[in-house]
Amino acid sequence: MASFGKVIRKNSLNAFSRVVLRRDFTRGRHSLGLVYGEYGDPGTVLKLEEIPVAEDLKDDEIEVDMLCAPVNPSDMNQIQGTYPFKSELPAVGGNEGVGLVRRCGLRVTGMKEGDWVIPILPGVGTWRSTLISNCNKFLKVSSSTGLDFAATLQVNPPTAYRMLKDFVSLQPGDTLIQNGANSGVGQAVIQLAAAWDISTINVVRTRPDSSDFDVINYLKELGATEVVTEEFLHSHKMKELIKGYSRPALGLNCVGGDSSTGVAKLLKEKGTLITYGGMSRKPVTIATSLFIFKQLTCIGYWNGLWLTNNITNNRALIEDMFHDLCTLGEKGLLRAPRSTKHELINYKNAINESMKPFVSSKQLLMIKN
Amino acid sequence: MASFGKVIRKNSLNAFSRVVLRRDFTRGRHSLGLVYGEYGDPGTVLKLEEIPVAEDLKDDEIEVDMLCAPVNPSDMNQIQGTYPFKSELPAVGGNEGVGLVRRCGLRVTGMKEGDWVIPILPGVGTWRSTLISNCNKFLKVSSSTGLDFAATLQVNPPTAYRMLKDFVSLQPGDTLIQNGANSGVGQAVIQLAAAWDISTINVVRTRPDSSDFDVINYLKELGATEVVTEEFLHSHKMKELIKGYSRPALGLNCVGGDSSTGVAKLLKEKGTLITYGGMSRKPVTIATSLFIFKQLTCIGYWNGLWLTNNITNNRALIEDMFHDLCTLGEKGLLRAPRSTKHELINYKNAINESMKPFVSSKQLLMIKN
Repeated sequence: MASFGKVIRKNSLNAFSRVVLRRDFTRGRHSLGLVYGEYGDPGTVLKLEEIPVAEDLKDDEIEVDMLCAPVNPSDMNQIQGTYPFKSELPAVGGNEGVGLVRRCGLRVTGMKEGDWVIPILPGVGTWRSTLISNCNKFLKVSSSTGLDFAATLQVNPPTAYRMLKDFVSLQPGDTLIQNGANSGVGQAVIQLAAAWDISTINVVRTRPDSSDFDVINYLKELGATEVVTEEFLHSHKMKELIKGYSRPALGLNCVGGDSSTGVAKLLKEKGTLITYGGMSRKPVTIATSLFIFKQLTCIGYWNGLWLTNNITNNRALIEDMFHDLCTLGEKGLLRAPRSTKHELINYKNAINESMKPFVSSKQLLMIKN
Repeated sequence: MASFGKVIRKNSLNAFSRVVLRRDFTRGRHSLGLVYGEYGDPGTVLKLEEIPVAEDLKDDEIEVDMLCAPVNPSDMNQIQGTYPFKSELPAVGGNEGVGLVRRCGLRVTGMKEGDWVIPILPGVGTWRSTLISNCNKFLKVSSSTGLDFAATLQVNPPTAYRMLKDFVSLQPGDTLIQNGANSGVGQAVIQLAAAWDISTINVVRTRPDSSDFDVINYLKELGATEVVTEEFLHSHKMKELIKGYSRPALGLNCVGGDSSTGVAKLLKEKGTLITYGGMSRKPVTIATSLFIFKQLTCIGYWNGLWLTNNITNNRALIEDMFHDLCTLGEKGLLRAPRSTKHELINYKNAINESMKPFVSSKQLLMIKN
């Protein structure tokens, strides 16, 4: 199996930092990271390895110590090899996270040692202690919103933000409907919509245990207007409930199958259904009549693509968005997701937890502190 | 059951014209038409009836003798009560057809006695011998393309025309893919695309008998680039076939179910799938990944709505379109569909034939000749 260097086993380490320090003074500098040399079950193919780190920085580069990085479902798909874009192997896992700038190249502006930064695009490999990157691939963020908030800022909040801003002109008092409302994006949608005075009708999976109540309460605490189960969505009661609101022009779908059918049916004429995920692994299924007689539009949103398309020519748009999101975070209007923290060395627990169904907590790898 | 007047039974008539003439000279003028007073099986609820015709024309009205009118699938749905918009009952069946102007009101311009006209909007009730209407609801057409062409000009050719013009910028040499390619719209798509130098990949149902060959040959004769069966669409051979063409940016779907899945899968990035029918009665079913990673857009087209939206403020756009279509007809680049003709009195045969599956012939009611 391909790898970057020596595989570190848990029992060979006393403390994470000691290894890095030792390497710095022996045979060149190394970072410690979660590397996969083949696609497969993340619990099996991911290895904690030493990764070489260059001594010198180019003029436009920064050296970043990663502080904290989440384990997202799309990270898992990437490692499983089921994601449409494959990394060159061996690769370091992780696409999101927050780091601390340690050093800056001579021509780096707008960032300095000690700043918190997040990667703008996916693909940097955030599950490692230290990395060197072109400074344009990172964005400085405020540290005042806390580690969890910054570590989970790059993927879910922008997905929610763009879906609410770019497709349908939503006005205060309007309503939107979404399924998978307890997902990371779903929770961000609820909070952004509440901050912008848009009502949200939120559909969550009917849970096998009695935790429905807990989820419903949590989402209402975040600002959800209505929270209903999938079962309720397909019942006649849903028709009654929706009458109390302006008919939604926007639907957000991260589930597919029957759930997408049900959400689409409740949209008003000329409504838009945006698909950004497919948690049920079933295709998006829409009644023909909605397209013809209700002029429904179905499209998709992919945050990685939006960022890639805008990083070069529209960087101000990206910066404005993250500024808005951080401001909402500072005001307490946008919270970090509920999380469970794991030391990097205990990454297998984080991976296992992240792949369990019905776990509402985001798994965070605490890397350098 | 509600009705306009006396029900005419086949055995009470010697000749259609005699009845009309007799009524003209007895108790006010009457037209003869196919009327339904309740929703249900068209073969049962449709009755041939006398319908009163006003003596006098308003200044902006025309009196039209209907010459020929087709029996379309949507006419059947309307009578069955499954169409989303219901007529006030009793209603005269039929939405399309060509008529001869008999008289014009004082302020009617651009039309004169003897002109051929077609209704612009659905809902006029074309299955009758004579009707009076506001002249703006009709459009003058050339008689040089023949009765079949004019009688079937209002629904299918404009649907094909707008779907090819309004959604994706198609250039000569581009390719489109459609299912239900043997439908009336499908045949118009093939011919318009051929006239505009656009390649068409056409999917037809796998037929229970050995008539595949006949259908394939007929569509190729109309200008189809490729004709394949549904079975072929879902085979690995389809991937090979499509490599010979520029990847289609436009897909047209009038089938739904697996067929829509297969067509959508072959579109290029940022492609558009337009749904205008659902012959399989199964919902449009699209892989989630196409929305997210291939940025697919799914929308619908409804010709009746397009015409309604444009008849008042964009009449020139409508006239230009029908002018284009008639010009293509005169050049032999757009043909009337293959048809079977029935006298109005034999309407039950037309209805029965129109509801049989796998009948490639359009059923035409010959009304006045």
